[in-house]
Amino acid sequence: MRCDVVAVGTELLLGQIVDTNSAWIGEQLALNGIDSLTQIKIGDNVGRIEAVLRRLLADADAVIVCGGLGPTHDDVTREAIAAVMGVELREDPVVAMVIRDLFAARGRPMAANNLRQAQVPDGAVVIPQTRGTAPGLICPVGDKVVYAVPGVPHEMRDMLERAVLPDLRARNTDPAVIVSRVLRTWGESESGLNERLDDIVARLDVAGDPTLAFLARGWNGLEVRLTTRQPDEQAAARVLDEWEAEVRGRLGALVFGVGDESMESVVLDLLRDESLTVAIAESVTGGLVAARLTEVPGASDAFRGSLVSYASEVKFGVLDVTPGPVVNAPAAAEMAEGAMRVLGSSVGVGVTGVAGPAEQDDVPVGTVFVAIAIAGAETITRQLRLPGQRDQIRQFAVINALDLLRRQLVLRVGAT
Amino acid sequence: MRCDVVAVGTELLLGQIVDTNSAWIGEQLALNGIDSLTQIKIGDNVGRIEAVLRRLLADADAVIVCGGLGPTHDDVTREAIAAVMGVELREDPVVAMVIRDLFAARGRPMAANNLRQAQVPDGAVVIPQTRGTAPGLICPVGDKVVYAVPGVPHEMRDMLERAVLPDLRARNTDPAVIVSRVLRTWGESESGLNERLDDIVARLDVAGDPTLAFLARGWNGLEVRLTTRQPDEQAAARVLDEWEAEVRGRLGALVFGVGDESMESVVLDLLRDESLTVAIAESVTGGLVAARLTEVPGASDAFRGSLVSYASEVKFGVLDVTPGPVVNAPAAAEMAEGAMRVLGSSVGVGVTGVAGPAEQDDVPVGTVFVAIAIAGAETITRQLRLPGQRDQIRQFAVINALDLLRRQLVLRVGAT
Repeated sequence: MRCDVVAVGTELLLGQIVDTNSAWIGEQLALNGIDSLTQIKIGDNVGRIEAVLRRLLADADAVIVCGGLGPTHDDVTREAIAAVMGVELREDPVVAMVIRDLFAARGRPMAANNLRQAQVPDGAVVIPQTRGTAPGLICPVGDKVVYAVPGVPHEMRDMLERAVLPDLRARNTDPAVIVSRVLRTWGESESGLNERLDDIVARLDVAGDPTLAFLARGWNGLEVRLTTRQPDEQAAARVLDEWEAEVRGRLGALVFGVGDESMESVVLDLLRDESLTVAIAESVTGGLVAARLTEVPGASDAFRGSLVSYASEVKFGVLDVTPGPVVNAPAAAEMAEGAMRVLGSSVGVGVTGVAGPAEQDDVPVGTVFVAIAIAGAETITRQLRLPGQRDQIRQFAVINALDLLRRQLVLRVGAT
Repeated sequence: MRCDVVAVGTELLLGQIVDTNSAWIGEQLALNGIDSLTQIKIGDNVGRIEAVLRRLLADADAVIVCGGLGPTHDDVTREAIAAVMGVELREDPVVAMVIRDLFAARGRPMAANNLRQAQVPDGAVVIPQTRGTAPGLICPVGDKVVYAVPGVPHEMRDMLERAVLPDLRARNTDPAVIVSRVLRTWGESESGLNERLDDIVARLDVAGDPTLAFLARGWNGLEVRLTTRQPDEQAAARVLDEWEAEVRGRLGALVFGVGDESMESVVLDLLRDESLTVAIAESVTGGLVAARLTEVPGASDAFRGSLVSYASEVKFGVLDVTPGPVVNAPAAAEMAEGAMRVLGSSVGVGVTGVAGPAEQDDVPVGTVFVAIAIAGAETITRQLRLPGQRDQIRQFAVINALDLLRRQLVLRVGAT
């Protein structure tokens, strides 16, 4: 089965936005065993969108169109699809009601053009909106199909997972399943992981299934992804269980999670298991450690808070750090212990460093100190030398701090 | 003049790499007044690359192909272009010599397949390599042209600037520039902006230039983008100045910045102008307000720090918030004032709310209170009703808080 992708938006052609949607969709299609042979960016022009859809449908079984579903005059994806289907647009009363209710709930007046989003090609099935105001569309064209989804990434992903991929799977006559399992790692480079898994990679190259791939996810770590194509989910799970065990045998504590687990969710789970609470004192990361922990719903039962001590005087006055230079291991340790004391937790994390662009107190850009304080144990510190620009240094400081906390908590569990 | 773009590589379709090349090329083409109406990702398949090139050349004057010029068996861009030109490949002796010399200079043996990169379609002009081993190609097809450049971004950019763009400019009989100006807004929906600019949009639709587009940037706000095509930069600036003034006349304080300005950089500039410093007390946003302000290099001269008071006891004990329910306007005000006092700033921001998934103390998900305290002025508060899921509520709370701070600072400047 073949499904091509069209990203609509003049801003994409002008390079004002990079189209990341089609890459994400391509990945999802591959995971579902569906080929995607052409992915096209096209401007907000109804005639050109129509022509591209007709051309792709000549070869592909399905086309996913992202973008051009908004309320304004330059959103013309609906019109182009209706032209390809050879039907008129009609107002869908349910969609119109949802849009009206949404504005009413926010207590805001609704501009009339918002109802453009309720215009649906005759014969299309609506994918209800759960986040934005534009619904998605499933549009049959003979025995083929065009899917329309919003260009806003989180709305697009939601609709793909909820409606488009299930519909594609139902249409796919090749009944194999392609299942992946992701092991999340931190603390080793891609080539380092590759070397540790050298002979497993060689054996899989010969066997052909499962495949093993490495994927760098920035501050979410490095993924080791096993993918297998099997007759059913049970067979796939058996194969993945076997190879996951092999990979874990080589990587040990480098693996911090599997599947949907994140560094922050794993850390919070470990804290809860030990009935501990954590507080942060962070300067270089400017609130990102706290922001990342509080991404997890229910973080409040293990996370007390964070003191973003950006000005040195806040470190001295509030956290009781010894006055003087503040980018060094003793300052990180005093920050961690100060956070415990001020915010009333049983675990403290201190993060101080230089993210640039300029060095600070003769400390070079990329130098970061992390400290972990646990009530009743000696505070430990680590010095990091992080590569990259300001943003990358800050993000890598966050995952390194959380990973150090994770390892200390795992050690503690092992010791009790 | 029209120049389309083809990015070659199966890994692009599978989403293992995001194609950023075509966006960069699109931006360069626009700056040179050249239209780019279609940008396509295609796999490493000689027949499909040839078919795409033929189809694009039917309408476009030129096509830039990125990638597929390497030494391995799956690099087939050269073969596809030769087929479109109707010529054979021949070995270019100069290119072959450069490749041999490069390996000799590195003291490494050269695998024979490296000489595949010296294969050039008969009649093509070589763009010498200065960074990698693959040369670029300028390939005439009748009175049109195909350019081939490597897929490695810095090699691609080098060849574009050095050879492709100059060649395109020389061929362009319509010497124009296309220039955009972005006005960044917050506080009004896309359709609301559209309605406020209704007659301007109508006039521009008739005039055809400049064009006006809206772009939702999530927690970076909504962009209003004016784009004009003019004989030179000066003429473009005049047109954009004129229409920017018209748009600003309608949108007033909704416009928080222009071009590269961000909400956080604008807020920090306003604080510096008034010699003020700011401190944050945030719970629902969990550190994101601070993280966003500290994205800006040099934030430390106006940003003191943040107290992420996630646990209610931290609000009561550290910030001196009155014990009781904490998601309401008085609590937000006490947080803002507590942040000022504890962190030693002249401005305080308090943010408290419910991001979900569950309601808290009977307060529904999406309810957020923001307070702005400025030394010597009365503390103001706002209640927000934010849509969406947890992450969206948190992000929208951040930009709303910063925007409220911005508006208070602008009022203060206006009053003095």
